[in-house]
Amino acid sequence: MVNPLLAPELRELLAEKKYSELCEFCESFHPAQIAEFLSALTPKEIWEILSRLSPSLRGEIFSHIDEDVQLNMINTLGREVMGKLLSEMPPDDRVDLVKHLPERQREAIIPAMAQAEREDLRRLIAYPEGTAGSVMTSEYAVLNPDLTVEDALLKLRREAPNKETIYYSFVVDENHKLIGFVSLKDLIVAPTGARVKDIMYEDVIFARAYDDQEEVARLIQKYDLLAIPVVDEQNRLVGIITHDDVMDILQQEQQEDVEKLMAIGGSHEVGVYTKLSTWDHFKSRIPWIVVLALMGFVSGLIIQNYESIFLQVAILASFMPMLTGTGGNAGSQSATLVIRALAVNEITIRDAFKVLSKEFRVAFLMSIILAAIAYLRVMAFYGQAALPPSVTPLKVGLAVAIALALQVITSTLIGALLPLVAVSVKVDPAVVASPLLATMVDIFGLLIYFNVARLVLNL
Amino acid sequence: MVNPLLAPELRELLAEKKYSELCEFCESFHPAQIAEFLSALTPKEIWEILSRLSPSLRGEIFSHIDEDVQLNMINTLGREVMGKLLSEMPPDDRVDLVKHLPERQREAIIPAMAQAEREDLRRLIAYPEGTAGSVMTSEYAVLNPDLTVEDALLKLRREAPNKETIYYSFVVDENHKLIGFVSLKDLIVAPTGARVKDIMYEDVIFARAYDDQEEVARLIQKYDLLAIPVVDEQNRLVGIITHDDVMDILQQEQQEDVEKLMAIGGSHEVGVYTKLSTWDHFKSRIPWIVVLALMGFVSGLIIQNYESIFLQVAILASFMPMLTGTGGNAGSQSATLVIRALAVNEITIRDAFKVLSKEFRVAFLMSIILAAIAYLRVMAFYGQAALPPSVTPLKVGLAVAIALALQVITSTLIGALLPLVAVSVKVDPAVVASPLLATMVDIFGLLIYFNVARLVLNL
Repeated sequence: MVNPLLAPELRELLAEKKYSELCEFCESFHPAQIAEFLSALTPKEIWEILSRLSPSLRGEIFSHIDEDVQLNMINTLGREVMGKLLSEMPPDDRVDLVKHLPERQREAIIPAMAQAEREDLRRLIAYPEGTAGSVMTSEYAVLNPDLTVEDALLKLRREAPNKETIYYSFVVDENHKLIGFVSLKDLIVAPTGARVKDIMYEDVIFARAYDDQEEVARLIQKYDLLAIPVVDEQNRLVGIITHDDVMDILQQEQQEDVEKLMAIGGSHEVGVYTKLSTWDHFKSRIPWIVVLALMGFVSGLIIQNYESIFLQVAILASFMPMLTGTGGNAGSQSATLVIRALAVNEITIRDAFKVLSKEFRVAFLMSIILAAIAYLRVMAFYGQAALPPSVTPLKVGLAVAIALALQVITSTLIGALLPLVAVSVKVDPAVVASPLLATMVDIFGLLIYFNVARLVLNL
Repeated sequence: MVNPLLAPELRELLAEKKYSELCEFCESFHPAQIAEFLSALTPKEIWEILSRLSPSLRGEIFSHIDEDVQLNMINTLGREVMGKLLSEMPPDDRVDLVKHLPERQREAIIPAMAQAEREDLRRLIAYPEGTAGSVMTSEYAVLNPDLTVEDALLKLRREAPNKETIYYSFVVDENHKLIGFVSLKDLIVAPTGARVKDIMYEDVIFARAYDDQEEVARLIQKYDLLAIPVVDEQNRLVGIITHDDVMDILQQEQQEDVEKLMAIGGSHEVGVYTKLSTWDHFKSRIPWIVVLALMGFVSGLIIQNYESIFLQVAILASFMPMLTGTGGNAGSQSATLVIRALAVNEITIRDAFKVLSKEFRVAFLMSIILAAIAYLRVMAFYGQAALPPSVTPLKVGLAVAIALALQVITSTLIGALLPLVAVSVKVDPAVVASPLLATMVDIFGLLIYFNVARLVLNL
């Protein structure tokens, strides 16, 4: 976000070279707030202010600046300055930013970074998108199990400015294998003279670097953790994921789920609606729209096939949208509930039978109400509709009511079944639900409708 | 969750009265894990174990036990035991549980609680659902501004077991007004001899007790906070909301948004799919299904009105589902994106014009592709369809293509407009999007289709 409120004041302080006041200002607000204020300035002005601050505060503020402005700064300020700024950013934010740079710029800036940070970046950036490794930070506090509590506190005190958090420390052996964890609270309340190994928890809740980021976020959420350690195949500590990243992960996954449910493709990034170009929006939306339209033609072919029914009892055509629509709504209700229950690990594929039988009962109750409404609707409004001699309004009402009831039950069951099938073949349930569901509901619905009409009305 | 893995071992330890081993076991795992293990036991067995633990650990474990099991314990263990257990729970979890008790049980148990906790409960439970006050806890650490850092650390060390977090302390004046905040990290790195007022941040990010919980969650997320203080109208500190509650709030809001989008009513609680009865599911789903079905009849009336068109050119009926369906899909895409952008505060009502013009451009691009596909489809498959002499397949193709293009543009714009209108009249955008959108898209789509067909085909 950009907050231009203080831009004139900041410019004035800059012009008058009141640097100590500027520094004081930057230290007295939250880095995210400072970032908002600075975003209203030019890249050169931003750097002029940032360059006066301590490296860790500078890195912190820069990491909160909007990505547009960050990229703008990279384009303007030259590789030396940017290499410095990147080196000072929190490692996880740095990886995010570098991932968004064009290849050419990436190659130019990375060599300008300090060596340790450069190596750290290359290591972190190697983890595939969506894994725990891709969101972890390498600035975690480690303790030796043999340290006394006093020495541990001294060490944390010294390292505090360079660590993402000192509230959780991880205890590692000589091979950097994770063997325990202590919180700062444990250290503070520990009896004097105790050693880290005496007070550490050995049953550490941890993640593996290639675990799915959403699963890791759910662990942090379940155990109310501030941070979770991430280990490699040899159980060596390679990073931590902190509570604030979890919120971003959960929000990202939410965006993805909703967009997939609504047949939207693309990268599912959060907060980029206005930033994406018309062309980007077009590209992420047109594929499913076309696929769904093509599938709609299948329904069209079914209707063409049963056309004679409409020519005999024209009024039947007018119930078609209500029939397919209601089926679609019932199907998305059950699909949504099952997808959510799967997402929060409330149910698994083994509960399929329980889920389907519950859905059947719910659908059965709904179908009674809907059938009654449909019947009344036909009786009330068949009006001047021309009916062949063998067809009475009562029969039409019966046909529509029966078809609607069957359609609601079928659609609800399909809606519940599809996500379960998707999960069992390791496909994201959200993505099959929308298009496949819509098509199947339409096709089944029309087949049910025409066949019920034929049977009941003797066409 | 219930984890029956260790139930036999726990029962054996109980039978052999090996209480110290039981206590050691409970202390060496995370309270949430212990809660899972205990949930497999009977209420009496659970209490037999819990009663041996320290009050704060007991309260912590009990608060992680599944609500079903908690309620079961309340029904079995009697008011004395339960009053004790409730008194020891974290205040925010206690409020949640008591809210779910039937009135009669609530009245029985509350008087059995310790006085301080009873008053605290009555105070917290008074805040309406969905406000910051309803999710905050009253176990926060406060400091006097004149304390030295050493004394502050001693105080926190003493109070640690009874506070939700000691990593953030809030500084209050003699009237309990919030005047600053210090983190434990600040206290630890502070020079010896400094006073709290020297190192505290005076620009505290805070929430008011009646603020919307989602807005507060977004603040914590934006500023990467561990906790946010909550104040009353007189700026007096009344509670804090911690980072772990934020995840639950965001997940709750996500559930609500998705379910509303999919036309599902009810309480939108997370993780209760299997717990809700068939009847509960029915009640939360039937209202919108009926409303949408009734609205579907409106489309039916339009079709009845234009019936003569189908009787003249029967093939037109077969494109109807594709036309309304594609409109519905395009509309939910734009509605979803706009709702999400509004939810994460990326856009506001003032961006309406920008949003609509972007949506128009995207829809225009999509309509070209779709019109071309529709035209080709008609030309390829009009087959043996009987057409009146004045109507050529080329004209039918043209009519369908034009109608589809207009329908996609109209639906996309309606999808973007509805959430914006909803927000401007202070209605939740997610709830108007689904039903109103579906109906409007259908009605506009059919009117467009029939009128375009009439014009192009001269019917």
